[in-house]
Amino acid sequence: MSLIVSKFGGSSVSDAASISRVADRIAGMRTQGHDVVVVVSAMGDTTDELIDLAEQVSAGGAAPQREMDILLTAGERISMALLAIAIHSRGVSAQAFTGQQAGVLTDSAYGNARILDVTPGRLTSCLESGSVAIVAGFQGVNEDAGDVTTLGRGGSDTTAVALAAALRADVCEIYTDVDGVFTADPRIVPTARRLARVTSEEMLEMAAHGAKILHLRSVEYARRHGVEMHVRSSFSMLEGTRVVTPTDEEEQLMEAPIISGVAHDRSQAKITAVGVPDVPGAAARLFETVAGAGANIDMIVQNVSVHETGRTDISFTLPATDTDAVRAAIEAVAEELGHTELIVNAGIGKLSLVGAGMRSHPGVSAKLFGALRDAGVNIEMISTSEIRISVVTSADDLDTAVRAVHTAFGLDAAEVEAVVYGGTGR
Amino acid sequence: MSLIVSKFGGSSVSDAASISRVADRIAGMRTQGHDVVVVVSAMGDTTDELIDLAEQVSAGGAAPQREMDILLTAGERISMALLAIAIHSRGVSAQAFTGQQAGVLTDSAYGNARILDVTPGRLTSCLESGSVAIVAGFQGVNEDAGDVTTLGRGGSDTTAVALAAALRADVCEIYTDVDGVFTADPRIVPTARRLARVTSEEMLEMAAHGAKILHLRSVEYARRHGVEMHVRSSFSMLEGTRVVTPTDEEEQLMEAPIISGVAHDRSQAKITAVGVPDVPGAAARLFETVAGAGANIDMIVQNVSVHETGRTDISFTLPATDTDAVRAAIEAVAEELGHTELIVNAGIGKLSLVGAGMRSHPGVSAKLFGALRDAGVNIEMISTSEIRISVVTSADDLDTAVRAVHTAFGLDAAEVEAVVYGGTGR
Repeated sequence: MSLIVSKFGGSSVSDAASISRVADRIAGMRTQGHDVVVVVSAMGDTTDELIDLAEQVSAGGAAPQREMDILLTAGERISMALLAIAIHSRGVSAQAFTGQQAGVLTDSAYGNARILDVTPGRLTSCLESGSVAIVAGFQGVNEDAGDVTTLGRGGSDTTAVALAAALRADVCEIYTDVDGVFTADPRIVPTARRLARVTSEEMLEMAAHGAKILHLRSVEYARRHGVEMHVRSSFSMLEGTRVVTPTDEEEQLMEAPIISGVAHDRSQAKITAVGVPDVPGAAARLFETVAGAGANIDMIVQNVSVHETGRTDISFTLPATDTDAVRAAIEAVAEELGHTELIVNAGIGKLSLVGAGMRSHPGVSAKLFGALRDAGVNIEMISTSEIRISVVTSADDLDTAVRAVHTAFGLDAAEVEAVVYGGTGR
Repeated sequence: MSLIVSKFGGSSVSDAASISRVADRIAGMRTQGHDVVVVVSAMGDTTDELIDLAEQVSAGGAAPQREMDILLTAGERISMALLAIAIHSRGVSAQAFTGQQAGVLTDSAYGNARILDVTPGRLTSCLESGSVAIVAGFQGVNEDAGDVTTLGRGGSDTTAVALAAALRADVCEIYTDVDGVFTADPRIVPTARRLARVTSEEMLEMAAHGAKILHLRSVEYARRHGVEMHVRSSFSMLEGTRVVTPTDEEEQLMEAPIISGVAHDRSQAKITAVGVPDVPGAAARLFETVAGAGANIDMIVQNVSVHETGRTDISFTLPATDTDAVRAAIEAVAEELGHTELIVNAGIGKLSLVGAGMRSHPGVSAKLFGALRDAGVNIEMISTSEIRISVVTSADDLDTAVRAVHTAFGLDAAEVEAVVYGGTGR
């Protein structure tokens, strides 16, 4: 019998009927003899509705973060209690625990707290007594004040992984509304296939580059603590995708496919500073300014000096939602930076090819660029890591690019059986 | 400047607009220099909606009380956080506290916990720092497990009084949707008048006998700790009704009116066991059975033996909601009890005349009975305390009875100016 941590997101507990369905599932697992810890998010759109209420009462003024966290954690309180009640009514004992009661200690960064420690003594006692433990996701408690904190959007995945690590669970199941991780988004690539297995390293690259199926921090946490995640559907009993962290030795033995999947991202924009003086420190000053505006930069391209007067162009990508703030910050110090023009382009897309086998296989870039050329897709920017190649295209070309690359690397359904693991989010 | 504890019920914080109105009021009090602790209930019908959800997921099965309390306390979390955010956005610093953080320690009777102690250290610090403290009503924490508990229906009034006592507040304001305590329910007696003052002793009698304006336990707590309550409207700045607990000395000095108000109660039913053997222990056995069914009996009447065969009739009143359980319990031991028939009458009403001055004024009963006789109202049962006379009538006669008695004791608007204090709920 196993110790299983199972996380159910908001769409899996959106109303009484879906909570009842989850309760049936959990009661069944317990009846089979497993020890089960369930992590739940707030029901459906509860969190968004609470944020909306807060905006209404504060008339747009900034809300104190501590009180926002008290507000937002009410949603998980409701879902965790209802799920415990539903399981209990099926003849299986269940107890609900807040993040604090589950021992999730965090720092005091309200709204985006980091887990410092997990002391799950009450959960252990609960399991030993034969009960299912239901835990509120997304929340913890800070050590100094004993105030509730939240882990940021998608934080329930991180709660689940952190509890799985602290309890040395056999697996951390992440239930969602799709069947697992796919070689590409099936809405764009109908021939995309669910993959049985993906390494946490690859999953991290995919999550960081557009795959939305798992919260980046949860995968980092799982990788650091060697927790196996199992991404699967709450609407079926099918196997999903296992996200594993092989040891170096295991990795040697694994038949690593060259490419595991194609991720894409439409949420970025590109800013180009034209005619920046090509002198030491110019780029540094520019990116200090961008960082000061709170934006995370993804790719950077600096052309070789093309202007007669010793000037250059610097392009970078960033979350599209940050463009207004960054543009304003740069224009505020325009004189100092000395660029001649600022071009903002929100119409870009990013394609990322991810695969651990890339390390030992040269020629992947050449094949990627060839496939895009044959599909008539122009490449605007390129960046690479050890196991990933990303290119920026125009937003209009992105779907064509994803399909062409998916086919070129033999990921389409007919051939995908040979691919052992890999994939990307929905 | 005063230290004021102000409690706002669910109807005062039912939506964003009403929360904003309460925030304006509190910000105004703080700006005038008062130290303010605000106790809030859940928004509007939140608690009923949560109970409804619990019933849906448990398919009618009994829900575990500990988890029900976790569920129900989510409502106050939302309202307390929203109110703190709303006040903060008006430029007045405010912090929200759970029952636990406010130091409300209770026993472990989930669903109906009693306050054991209040240690409001965090509230004191909050006030000293110049902030308004917002506290979740209706909830506490038990000492052994650190689990959240609820104080039962209307428990937010008790939270407010308990905090006022612990903080030695100058007054505990209870904001509601009526202007205060009236000499009778204005919907039945249009000439009923708001009263400026009522003693906690009288308020207790009224609350116990149908006046719904204050939760019985909160008045008991206020009486025991000498807390002055001020019942007033959240929709106006008018003075409401002050519920005071005079010392014996003060009481001597007060011009106590004979009658302070007329309460009524439609929620009771009457059960008559006909032909009970008139032997020692028969009544005891009957009421053991009733108590075993969990019902609180109000009035009891045992006729003198009227049957030829040494039998008697025993009638008692109880909450109408308990009649089915009590009837079943009695019928289960019918043979042992030996009664010949059981009559259940849900169509009764109870009128209670309350007034501290009754102690020193004989003749009140006679005047009451005379007024009812003149109005053609038949009296079915009578019970009295030191400062109260209650009669049971048919439900159809209750409104007529209340109006007749209100007039007979000079409580109607034209004369009410002479009445210093007294009244009844809406």
